[in-house]
Amino acid sequence: MESLTLKPIGVIHSPFSDAKSMPIQPVSENSAAGRVEVFPEFAEGLKDLEGFSHLLLLYHFHRSRPYSLSVTPFLDTEPRGLFATRAPNRPNPIGLSLVRLVRIEGPRLHVENIDVLDGTPLLDLKPHVPDFDCVPSARIGWLEKAVAEMRKKVADERFT
Amino acid sequence: MESLTLKPIGVIHSPFSDAKSMPIQPVSENSAAGRVEVFPEFAEGLKDLEGFSHLLLLYHFHRSRPYSLSVTPFLDTEPRGLFATRAPNRPNPIGLSLVRLVRIEGPRLHVENIDVLDGTPLLDLKPHVPDFDCVPSARIGWLEKAVAEMRKKVADERFT
Repeated sequence: MESLTLKPIGVIHSPFSDAKSMPIQPVSENSAAGRVEVFPEFAEGLKDLEGFSHLLLLYHFHRSRPYSLSVTPFLDTEPRGLFATRAPNRPNPIGLSLVRLVRIEGPRLHVENIDVLDGTPLLDLKPHVPDFDCVPSARIGWLEKAVAEMRKKVADERFT
Repeated sequence: MESLTLKPIGVIHSPFSDAKSMPIQPVSENSAAGRVEVFPEFAEGLKDLEGFSHLLLLYHFHRSRPYSLSVTPFLDTEPRGLFATRAPNRPNPIGLSLVRLVRIEGPRLHVENIDVLDGTPLLDLKPHVPDFDCVPSARIGWLEKAVAEMRKKVADERFT
């Protein structure tokens, strides 16, 4: 099948210069602020975006390394199939993150709940539409335990 | 910035041979069945996926045409900024769909709630994790009216 060549449409800025400093948290508990700088030639396409509270960022995992089809995720101790994880080292290293849109200034989007590295190349952005994108009751397999621990940790930190 | 070249990891099959025959519906109301055929060399990466009820498919909008930054969406009568829509004609034509995972047979995933064209090249698949991917109360700007009409139409059809 044909390959597909993509060119970034902007850059994502965040407080995170390396993966170690980046929190892994449910979106509802992550308040890290960042900004998305869309290249000026694409700014016209941002019209009407201000009506949406949340955006999906699609981006290049530009610091990813060669992938393995079996990985032991950060959140787990057992090896898992790569496609059952959100690990960055993938055959096609495309990342997907849901962020809160705070404010738009021309081609600059101020966002919160960011979990990507500073300088990440932006490939696309789409409005988050719960009717299309959400199944709140979805089963999450091996991640169930890890997500429960993440939630507990966040709750504990709030009270210390 | 550097460009990124992607190669499909599989093919998505669906009942839809053209965009006109494809329903636009909230994921909860769409039961169209399809299958995702992952190329054999990637099958090992599907381990542990069976624990997840829903998957995110990232794919190439392979029938997309050159984009315009201002589009009048199918669901609307006014021109909107491209990035405030889910239109397929985009600078980087990557599609994103949430599907229900029904069953896995080796490298073949049987899914429901499919809304992509038959023969679509698969770029990546990720587990859907509500804590990462969902803000059920998100504001959806111009789409509010269109989504309300979609829901009403689906409800009306159920009773006729």
